[in-house]
Amino acid sequence: MPNLDALFSDFIAVRQCTEFLCQNLLLEDYHLQPVADVSPAKWHLAHTSWFFEQFILQDVQNYTCFHPQYNYLFNSYYESVGKRWDRAARGDLSRPAVETIYQYRAHVQEAIAAALPRFSERQLQLLQLGMHHEQQHQELLLTDLKYSLGLNPLFPALQTKAAKPSLLRHRADGEHKISENWFEIPAGVYWVGFSEAEPFKAEPSLSVDFSFDNERGAHRVFINPCEIATQTVTQREYLAFVEAGGYTRPEFWLSDGWDWCQREQIQAPLHWHFQDNAWWNYTLSGLQRLDLDAPVTHLSFFEADAYARFCGARLPTEFEWEVAVQLLQPQNPFTEAQHSPFLESGYWQPVPYGGFWGNVWEWTASAYLPYPGFEVAEGAVGEYNGKFMNGQYVLRGGSCATPHAHIRATYRNFFMPEKRWQFTGLRLARSLKEKSC
Amino acid sequence: MPNLDALFSDFIAVRQCTEFLCQNLLLEDYHLQPVADVSPAKWHLAHTSWFFEQFILQDVQNYTCFHPQYNYLFNSYYESVGKRWDRAARGDLSRPAVETIYQYRAHVQEAIAAALPRFSERQLQLLQLGMHHEQQHQELLLTDLKYSLGLNPLFPALQTKAAKPSLLRHRADGEHKISENWFEIPAGVYWVGFSEAEPFKAEPSLSVDFSFDNERGAHRVFINPCEIATQTVTQREYLAFVEAGGYTRPEFWLSDGWDWCQREQIQAPLHWHFQDNAWWNYTLSGLQRLDLDAPVTHLSFFEADAYARFCGARLPTEFEWEVAVQLLQPQNPFTEAQHSPFLESGYWQPVPYGGFWGNVWEWTASAYLPYPGFEVAEGAVGEYNGKFMNGQYVLRGGSCATPHAHIRATYRNFFMPEKRWQFTGLRLARSLKEKSC
Amino acid sequence: MPNLDALFSDFIAVRQCTEFLCQNLLLEDYHLQPVADVSPAKWHLAHTSWFFEQFILQDVQNYTCFHPQYNYLFNSYYESVGKRWDRAARGDLSRPAVETIYQYRAHVQEAIAAALPRFSERQLQLLQLGMHHEQQHQELLLTDLKYSLGLNPLFPALQTKAAKPSLLRHRADGEHKISENWFEIPAGVYWVGFSEAEPFKAEPSLSVDFSFDNERGAHRVFINPCEIATQTVTQREYLAFVEAGGYTRPEFWLSDGWDWCQREQIQAPLHWHFQDNAWWNYTLSGLQRLDLDAPVTHLSFFEADAYARFCGARLPTEFEWEVAVQLLQPQNPFTEAQHSPFLESGYWQPVPYGGFWGNVWEWTASAYLPYPGFEVAEGAVGEYNGKFMNGQYVLRGGSCATPHAHIRATYRNFFMPEKRWQFTGLRLARSLKEKSC
Amino acid sequence: MPNLDALFSDFIAVRQCTEFLCQNLLLEDYHLQPVADVSPAKWHLAHTSWFFEQFILQDVQNYTCFHPQYNYLFNSYYESVGKRWDRAARGDLSRPAVETIYQYRAHVQEAIAAALPRFSERQLQLLQLGMHHEQQHQELLLTDLKYSLGLNPLFPALQTKAAKPSLLRHRADGEHKISENWFEIPAGVYWVGFSEAEPFKAEPSLSVDFSFDNERGAHRVFINPCEIATQTVTQREYLAFVEAGGYTRPEFWLSDGWDWCQREQIQAPLHWHFQDNAWWNYTLSGLQRLDLDAPVTHLSFFEADAYARFCGARLPTEFEWEVAVQLLQPQNPFTEAQHSPFLESGYWQPVPYGGFWGNVWEWTASAYLPYPGFEVAEGAVGEYNGKFMNGQYVLRGGSCATPHAHIRATYRNFFMPEKRWQFTGLRLARSLKEKSC
Repeated sequence: MPNLDALFSDFIAVRQCTEFLCQNLLLEDYHLQPVADVSPAKWHLAHTSWFFEQFILQDVQNYTCFHPQYNYLFNSYYESVGKRWDRAARGDLSRPAVETIYQYRAHVQEAIAAALPRFSERQLQLLQLGMHHEQQHQELLLTDLKYSLGLNPLFPALQTKAAKPSLLRHRADGEHKISENWFEIPAGVYWVGFSEAEPFKAEPSLSVDFSFDNERGAHRVFINPCEIATQTVTQREYLAFVEAGGYTRPEFWLSDGWDWCQREQIQAPLHWHFQDNAWWNYTLSGLQRLDLDAPVTHLSFFEADAYARFCGARLPTEFEWEVAVQLLQPQNPFTEAQHSPFLESGYWQPVPYGGFWGNVWEWTASAYLPYPGFEVAEGAVGEYNGKFMNGQYVLRGGSCATPHAHIRATYRNFFMPEKRWQFTGLRLARSLKEKSC
Repeated sequence: MPNLDALFSDFIAVRQCTEFLCQNLLLEDYHLQPVADVSPAKWHLAHTSWFFEQFILQDVQNYTCFHPQYNYLFNSYYESVGKRWDRAARGDLSRPAVETIYQYRAHVQEAIAAALPRFSERQLQLLQLGMHHEQQHQELLLTDLKYSLGLNPLFPALQTKAAKPSLLRHRADGEHKISENWFEIPAGVYWVGFSEAEPFKAEPSLSVDFSFDNERGAHRVFINPCEIATQTVTQREYLAFVEAGGYTRPEFWLSDGWDWCQREQIQAPLHWHFQDNAWWNYTLSGLQRLDLDAPVTHLSFFEADAYARFCGARLPTEFEWEVAVQLLQPQNPFTEAQHSPFLESGYWQPVPYGGFWGNVWEWTASAYLPYPGFEVAEGAVGEYNGKFMNGQYVLRGGSCATPHAHIRATYRNFFMPEKRWQFTGLRLARSLKEKSC
Repeated sequence: MPNLDALFSDFIAVRQCTEFLCQNLLLEDYHLQPVADVSPAKWHLAHTSWFFEQFILQDVQNYTCFHPQYNYLFNSYYESVGKRWDRAARGDLSRPAVETIYQYRAHVQEAIAAALPRFSERQLQLLQLGMHHEQQHQELLLTDLKYSLGLNPLFPALQTKAAKPSLLRHRADGEHKISENWFEIPAGVYWVGFSEAEPFKAEPSLSVDFSFDNERGAHRVFINPCEIATQTVTQREYLAFVEAGGYTRPEFWLSDGWDWCQREQIQAPLHWHFQDNAWWNYTLSGLQRLDLDAPVTHLSFFEADAYARFCGARLPTEFEWEVAVQLLQPQNPFTEAQHSPFLESGYWQPVPYGGFWGNVWEWTASAYLPYPGFEVAEGAVGEYNGKFMNGQYVLRGGSCATPHAHIRATYRNFFMPEKRWQFTGLRLARSLKEKSC
Repeated sequence: MPNLDALFSDFIAVRQCTEFLCQNLLLEDYHLQPVADVSPAKWHLAHTSWFFEQFILQDVQNYTCFHPQYNYLFNSYYESVGKRWDRAARGDLSRPAVETIYQYRAHVQEAIAAALPRFSERQLQLLQLGMHHEQQHQELLLTDLKYSLGLNPLFPALQTKAAKPSLLRHRADGEHKISENWFEIPAGVYWVGFSEAEPFKAEPSLSVDFSFDNERGAHRVFINPCEIATQTVTQREYLAFVEAGGYTRPEFWLSDGWDWCQREQIQAPLHWHFQDNAWWNYTLSGLQRLDLDAPVTHLSFFEADAYARFCGARLPTEFEWEVAVQLLQPQNPFTEAQHSPFLESGYWQPVPYGGFWGNVWEWTASAYLPYPGFEVAEGAVGEYNGKFMNGQYVLRGGSCATPHAHIRATYRNFFMPEKRWQFTGLRLARSLKEKSC
């Protein structure tokens, strides 16, 4: 456990960051929920406070609940803490007012501050969990807003003054040849998963003593011989797939992916727009021409998988990705978070850059399943991750909307294969023949 | 045609009224659209301005369009003026901001004011049409807000200080006996429909020279012998139906109505809530105990029809209603609009009172069909009413959310039989045996 | 009441006719239910027997029910006789076998024959009702089979040897000019509806003493001045609408009709197919070139209404149709049923012919609503017609699949406006100016 | 490759077996398709012939296609061989008649017989593939019929004379204690997947030289320490879960599983019926009391997974299952197929018996994903398996409806997690602590 002062200051920093992300919102923008997946900004502000109230404060002596109906209104999906407002209807509640929600945040924060000195170890763990939970919602807040504003024909910009991070190692330039940049992973047994005893040190995490339940249980896997690309796929490369008719050729697609394409009439990544004879990208800074050297993003798993097949390659498994990171020992190059392709840069779109961290979440070929010996935590917190282990794929590495201190080499993000409102991209991999078998 | 000064002052009054209705809204309330039927307040403010811009101003020399995309964003259903934003997604647009929409309103209003002195007769007619159109949206604005706020578990009140109108002729009191109050209409041929030559004088209309296309074409109908109730059905009376298991007995229901009840699990009128062992009503002043003497409202046609059958009666046809009004010569008792059960009273819920005007729209047994010789107007305005003449029923009389000057004896409102977010109620009727046939 | 011998022989004739219609079916054809509207032939055979069992035989002493679960399996929509098998799943029951259903038919028929001599007057009425009920299902049996076989890409023919009726008064020839053939109905009060005292004698009905409840209650209507076409619209005429882009021009369509067209991608009448550069018709004799002189059929109300508007006309009301028939005194020209455009001809498609009877059901502009003084019968039989009086339109005149003896001038058929699997067509009408008003 | 005579005689045996399975069908039963998943028996008969026609015969010189539209009608899901009839509408085709389909089968069979002597190696491989394909459809034919007949309230029996296999090693009896029967798999690296060089000999397969593409690519996996049950879960054991309220307690369920339970109102395995105060099973021999000692079957993955959690256990991975079979070296105990819990026994329901083969397919915890180096075959055959590798789980071991010679230790069956119309059950597993880590 970190010391209490450091923990408290991290807590305040996380809380302030959430509100900072809302600084350019109009009051009108706080309620958008055009589809069920996407929650209103107001709801994120409230729900991240509810989490502390529900899992910590309600057991704190003398704590006064802010409002008796907020447990009903701001519970997300925890069956064991009672009924809840329908997820798809979060945008239908104009009240409580935004101002009231900011008061709710302050109320919760002050109560945490007052009680923190007497927290039990369990409560300290829950506080840390709540902070990482809020960081996840910071990313969702941005991607939800991007989705909601991106379908408005006026294409409003949230960031009018964001500067493109300048200190990054840029990818070379022009037509990048895929074949140059493969890293071979030797066949063998490797350890994967988060180990409290020996956390992997190269990772840019806030605190190496935190992990989610779904990444715990260090265990061995056998990696069959393969190679993995050192770069994520760029918009230039993906555009070649689009222009080669990739969306009209069933041979590249999983059956479910092909059905999804037909049903939803998918013809390009989300937020791409073809107008005036050119391709444009909706970004949080408004509509812009495609940055061809930047990683492609807002892809579904189906698109990522089809693209890989188009290239005669495949997606890496989550373990190939994790082992590659171990082997390459990629020391975190980001001494200052604001210069890295993470949330703190303030530049919420991927940039040309070639590492394993930030920029875009990378779809892997791995279904999101429990690790050996996975254990569900006691109580409602046990519903956090485990019950979603069906029908989803693991993503690795973090994105330009992930807080810098939130990510780890063992971190497992997960989404359903047709979803693409997150900053999702891909890296290629290829199986190699057994040399001696 | 009224003189230009009077017309202009009416125009300004209509525009101001719309904005007055929004005076208690939070900025958060302007965007609510929980279901497709219900439009956001912001959209009503914009669309009623778009109507003047589209149908009048775009032909006015030197008029500068406020924004090139507003025709796309704020067209409701006019096929002939181009593509439009999806109706069900009106609530998904946080931009343009509310403030911008008020500027749009001012821009349109000023342009009308400037051009009015040179309006052609056709333009003057369209101006009047636009004013009546805006009055219709005033009512929708209130009922849409009531629907949207009424599903919020916090039951917010828009009107905290509304006074119940006091000068009304109240219905007696207590258990009102239905059988006392029937008016017999003698069999015979009657004229119905709006006649420009001889408008029916008893009506409380703004101007007897206005009518919608769907009520024009004065023509004869034969009324078979019947009697019609002099009062609308009260909440006390309807509660007896609820308590007699009316919603669980298929024998009272049309087949489509019964299916609707089962599918939607309907058990009481919209906005009724049973809690703490009592029935409550959500009103625009918040949650209140049922006012048993007031007319029942927020009924679907199916419920109105089932209730009538439960009483051994039926709904009147639209012509029986119109002829009853003619015969009873009900001089408009409302010398001051703010004391009547209309929008201007500021008390937006039905009150105990026994006339034919205001309070609740009355479902009739008449399908909404064209009158003999009905003619669709030239151009996009022709889409105003005629194309909806399918699957709907006519309602008569106006409601507590209808502007006082908007209603006429020949006025035909119409809704689909399962809709109940308007202030809809009913009056009973009964066929009588032919005396001499 | 007819005498018992005549009634019994009519009963047997009706029962035999139903089975005769199935003579060319393969056993495979008896179970088709591609959509919920369309019931399997086996179900029609069973349900028409269930009707006699449920409404008559179960009250007959010593009657032995054929099978205890048949009330559950073969009840159509009668809420008051208990739960029933889901309508849309009728085709999912391979058992009871077809052979068993024929045994069921024989069982019911013999029980009726045995009990008939002691029937009460009520039972005799129910027997008649059951016979007319079975005649309705004869028509449905053919139209359901036509729908089901018509979507099979092999286009199987049921009737390979049907001869086109030859003794009919044919319509003139070639390009028929619409304007020549209008009949003017003078404005005035007329009696409509079935009167037991004075049935209208010109009708080709089996027995002038039968009527359904929905047509009873002779009453007066006022007909405003109008004229009505003496012929129904032909395929040639309708083809002109198709070729003029009728299905792509919203100005001709009701809003619901236009939405239906777009949603279902409707581009021609049901059973029309464009292939090898020509228009073909699927008929019960297989795929044939369009018979341009025959009435157009398999139209929805929306298509009929749009076509009328395209012609600057409208559909007649059901009363205009009924009064026209009265005034024209169209003596039934069909001395031999097998030569008329009815079911008995064995030629189940419309033929070029110009009267008011048979060939195609004619959509009217009248919503299907109760007549003044309409009374629902006691018991389950009361569910026969009345509960469907919502959202449907009245059709008049009978079709080539209607039994000759089933139709009357007062007969009201009804379907929902988007349905078109019946033999539905139209006749035009036009309002005339009041001469003296 | 087996010699041609043996291959031909196997081919004929497979073809005859398919038709044998239909021997008790009424002609009425051939067309049932109550849901899209379930295909009509007639379609299975046709499609398994189409497979040979499409993939082999169309390249054979002088072969005459049986009917030009059958490729359209009987293609299942192969995008690359052209458009096809809608899967969900297979039951809507009464024609071609059943008799014609048997002629089609004979036509194809004779053509294969005539051409076989000149088949290339590729054609011989495709013939084998077609035979295994037809065996898969034999199982589907039975489970589809069971689903379709099982929802008929008459609960018809297909097998009236099936004898329960008598020579089996029966499970002890009475209340079986789960904890007695665990087999521990030592942690370590193991080979899994089909190896052409060294097929695993213990398997009961027709020919050890056949495999599907999805099981090829022998490769190493690391198995973490665990133990696996030696018996599948019985109906007695599962009933305890039902009676403990397992279907009403979200803590046992994956989130998607819980939603599925609520939405579909699932309360017991498919084909279980509670009536007359007892639990019954619909079987292909009709409705029977639950055989408590037999394996539970017709479970979804969600139910299997919830049951395992209820027991404090989990499902095995597909590799744990495959390695257990290797380690236990379970010599195929079934010298005579008709005495084993496979299709050939003629007794198409699970029996009390404790091995790894037949009886019920066992859900594993493994998502259905490609093996390292998985390669999609050239041409349309490449669509056979690979494109379905999304959102499904692997099942192992075969069932009482699987042909005895069709199964192998490396065989990977797969279904979506909510499906339960196959004979699906489960076996428990548990992770063990690392001993030395």
